[in-house]
Amino acid sequence: MSPFFPLRFRQQFPLLNQREHTTSASDIIYFDNAATTQKSQQVITAQQHYYLNNNANVHRASHQLSAKATFDFEQTRLAVQQFIKAKYLEEIIWTKGASESINLVAQSLGRNLLKPGDEIVLSASEHHANIVPWQILAEQTGAVIKVLPINEQGIINITNLESIITTKTKIVACAHISNVLGRINPIEKIIARARAVNAISLIDGAQAIAHLPVNVQALGCDFYVFSAHKMYGPTGVGVLYGRKALLESMSPYQGGGEMIKSVSFNKPTTFNDLPFKFEAGTPNISGIIAFKAAITLMKTAFTNDIHSYEQQLASYCYQALAQIPQVEFIVQGQPDIALIAFSIKDHHNHDIASALDSYNIALRSGHHCAMPLMELLTINGCLRVSLAPYNTLAEIDYFIRCLKEIVTTQTDAHTEINTEIKTKETELKENGLESIDNILKKFSKSKGWDSLHREIMLLGKKLPRLPSSQRNEQSLIAGCESLAWLTVEQDRQGHFHFFADSDAKVIRGLLMIVLAIFNNKTTAEIQQVNIDNIFDELGLLHHLSPSRGNGLLAIVAKIKQLTE
Amino acid sequence: MSPFFPLRFRQQFPLLNQREHTTSASDIIYFDNAATTQKSQQVITAQQHYYLNNNANVHRASHQLSAKATFDFEQTRLAVQQFIKAKYLEEIIWTKGASESINLVAQSLGRNLLKPGDEIVLSASEHHANIVPWQILAEQTGAVIKVLPINEQGIINITNLESIITTKTKIVACAHISNVLGRINPIEKIIARARAVNAISLIDGAQAIAHLPVNVQALGCDFYVFSAHKMYGPTGVGVLYGRKALLESMSPYQGGGEMIKSVSFNKPTTFNDLPFKFEAGTPNISGIIAFKAAITLMKTAFTNDIHSYEQQLASYCYQALAQIPQVEFIVQGQPDIALIAFSIKDHHNHDIASALDSYNIALRSGHHCAMPLMELLTINGCLRVSLAPYNTLAEIDYFIRCLKEIVTTQTDAHTEINTEIKTKETELKENGLESIDNILKKFSKSKGWDSLHREIMLLGKKLPRLPSSQRNEQSLIAGCESLAWLTVEQDRQGHFHFFADSDAKVIRGLLMIVLAIFNNKTTAEIQQVNIDNIFDELGLLHHLSPSRGNGLLAIVAKIKQLTE
Repeated sequence: MSPFFPLRFRQQFPLLNQREHTTSASDIIYFDNAATTQKSQQVITAQQHYYLNNNANVHRASHQLSAKATFDFEQTRLAVQQFIKAKYLEEIIWTKGASESINLVAQSLGRNLLKPGDEIVLSASEHHANIVPWQILAEQTGAVIKVLPINEQGIINITNLESIITTKTKIVACAHISNVLGRINPIEKIIARARAVNAISLIDGAQAIAHLPVNVQALGCDFYVFSAHKMYGPTGVGVLYGRKALLESMSPYQGGGEMIKSVSFNKPTTFNDLPFKFEAGTPNISGIIAFKAAITLMKTAFTNDIHSYEQQLASYCYQALAQIPQVEFIVQGQPDIALIAFSIKDHHNHDIASALDSYNIALRSGHHCAMPLMELLTINGCLRVSLAPYNTLAEIDYFIRCLKEIVTTQTDAHTEINTEIKTKETELKENGLESIDNILKKFSKSKGWDSLHREIMLLGKKLPRLPSSQRNEQSLIAGCESLAWLTVEQDRQGHFHFFADSDAKVIRGLLMIVLAIFNNKTTAEIQQVNIDNIFDELGLLHHLSPSRGNGLLAIVAKIKQLTE
Repeated sequence: MSPFFPLRFRQQFPLLNQREHTTSASDIIYFDNAATTQKSQQVITAQQHYYLNNNANVHRASHQLSAKATFDFEQTRLAVQQFIKAKYLEEIIWTKGASESINLVAQSLGRNLLKPGDEIVLSASEHHANIVPWQILAEQTGAVIKVLPINEQGIINITNLESIITTKTKIVACAHISNVLGRINPIEKIIARARAVNAISLIDGAQAIAHLPVNVQALGCDFYVFSAHKMYGPTGVGVLYGRKALLESMSPYQGGGEMIKSVSFNKPTTFNDLPFKFEAGTPNISGIIAFKAAITLMKTAFTNDIHSYEQQLASYCYQALAQIPQVEFIVQGQPDIALIAFSIKDHHNHDIASALDSYNIALRSGHHCAMPLMELLTINGCLRVSLAPYNTLAEIDYFIRCLKEIVTTQTDAHTEINTEIKTKETELKENGLESIDNILKKFSKSKGWDSLHREIMLLGKKLPRLPSSQRNEQSLIAGCESLAWLTVEQDRQGHFHFFADSDAKVIRGLLMIVLAIFNNKTTAEIQQVNIDNIFDELGLLHHLSPSRGNGLLAIVAKIKQLTE
């Protein structure tokens, strides 16, 4: 096997090398690859080339432009077939993403197949995309969901496989690699057991496809799904691999152009052959054509020794994290790919992630679309570092240095929140909150995110705490990544006064700003506030989009709702 | 209203101005805008800019890159809301295209709403995307489909609206503008009638959105759907506008990340607020962000007098076509937008389209995904010129000149096919067909499409005709745009001999090539043929992709199937 050259690989990703710096920040350390990967120059160029030279609809016209687009479009299908070693070209179905691929199977196959009492087997560590479509199906059919447990290393525990996957089981769906735990599941054994009881098997390969060579025929699964955007390809492109005989037996999923053979109001409509039966409407032509460049990139990487380098990244990062006393890993042992879930003792995940962000390190905190796993582990969420082979050991060094600095210099959030601060309400109303003018003075668009972040954290320290009796279900704001509470009082002049709190310091800082904006206003004044404009003035618009980021939308919505 | 400058508009579309010429052909005349439009430089640049600078997943992380991507992503939603004048931002749902938008409504709303005997009202001129989802729904629920007729001008006939849309009607779905007839339907009256009987109304705006300013509140429809790629935006992006109260009452369509509030194996999963409830999985982020540039372009165009210019194009093209005696319009009168359907007396649509293609004019022939309309008009298909405001009068002049040349110089195909040619089978076997070597001599990759097209047409003239008795259901090849027939005989040495025919000359030429490749071969030899390689040698690979184009796939599949 040829050696793998990480820097040569990295050079192909322009965002990592030649990004326009819109902030004062230096190059980004992108450690959120399990959410989406960066795109190679070849992918970006291929998409652009299509629009500049060959843009036309596919499979619909006989003109040259359409023939060229159709040819390139089908070449990517061929590349996918070869990449995952499917037996037939028509076993490759284009979807908009791995989630849609799973929904397609659940509805087109599951809805006809399942009867009340039939069982669908999932694992405890699945992504919502591999849970909710099956829950919807179970609700529609009366089927029952059973869950394969995971062991302490975060791997699906197959000790009792035969008692969970039984003759009652009709569908078994699980991830090749969990998006939180980074462990390779024993899917060969799970697939074999499913086959032994005549159950359909579906493997969610979203996290595996960029890290392991996949051979669907060797695996023997019935379905394998993944997304292009998690393997250096464009957004909006997904793959459903399905065994030909099964796909042929399934009803169409969506109706529309191209998926039909004949349509009539007077006789039955007939459907097209595979793969077109499942591809209603104009597909994501530019994305699919550009995806081929990502497959070429991966094929080359897999012929080189990319695996050793990924192992080195995983091991280096894991060992370094293990040296930090406050680090608590979510499961035991080093993961199989460079995807590590952890939290920091006595610190809110959200605070750590936003502090790292101020050092220009992008990683994720939260439930990672795996709430049942969080429930099982009895945690609210965790931090996740997910690396790609364009990441370097030097980046890991910088990350560890920053993390240590954050952990040692920041006050202990949990200790703080547990120490109740006695506050008189009058004090809160008149002195506790800063005015928006005062806040505006400290903020400015010209400042970098690092200094804005520091100001937010300082503001957070000044926000008076809510008594624990008021941090309850009624005051809780749904939709925030961290817990946040809001209460309100109206004075005789009709002005509203807000009191708020959060378990994350960064949210406490943002609450301080939000309260300064809305406090001491009437209903009419509150409804008129244009929060986007104020956030723009504060220089925060692109860092903390009020439309969703950090639950700000939820907080503003709650304020407007409480004062209507 | 400010004047509209067509050439300034055209300059924004690089494919029309600076395309790489991979063939000897000069600039393309792109008259297939109803299938998909070209993309403006701003759209292409915006997509590239996102990948180069801001690529991250949206709504999922608190890091800056994700906040920036989320902000831009939501800005496009806001732009769409303003563009179609929706009341609430959350009424704009992202889908992968107009087809998916309709499927979403059919399944999420229709499946709970409809009972056996309930009626769905469509029109006779709908695109398959606005028929098949409702047929699937009718099949699932026992509902019945009723059809609004069209008048001789191709407009939905509302004379008997009240007898078709009745209290039994639960859903009314029709196109704002038909994709074949180019007439604006009286949707205000149809929507009002639907509302009067408490039926849900859905308007397919795929063809209207690039030509008319749309105000969904003024229209009063419940749903309005369209695709970005038909209004100069990227592929893989669709919009579903829905009235908030209705959307809120609907079940989710697909399960996955982002569309949930909480997921658990132990208690009921709860769903997110609008619009996220309907947006499972990572969306087409790059496409949606780039789509904003297309909306900006259209907003500007609509403040200029684009309408007069489109009327001028429509009228100029229609009048010029009307001067050609052989032109037969599909419906009476000039269309409302520059989209004209016609055919040429005694010529196959496919032959005209492919001859125009050899002059580098791209238009469409076929059923245009509106088979029920073709059935109603008792035609197999038609030609369709669909213009955009970047098209020019000079392009129309050139198109008309070429069309006249084709019509006057080409032999009458239908007369020819009706004159039976007596052929002895031995003659066919030994002399009738050219050898592939002879054919290869005439073809070469270096030749332009115009001369290759000429060679194909010459070959077509040499193909012996099949007796009409052999042009029957058994020999018909399904999947071709034109009719094609194939029969086979096996000699004592096990070699197969094929006889084929078509009503389109261009297909007769291609059949000559295909037969030369496969004739006089054994089963094993036939299975081994790599048609892609031969088409590549012939220089045809990008013009006539054997994977689908021109039904070649169907012909090759039939040959392989007949000789297995």
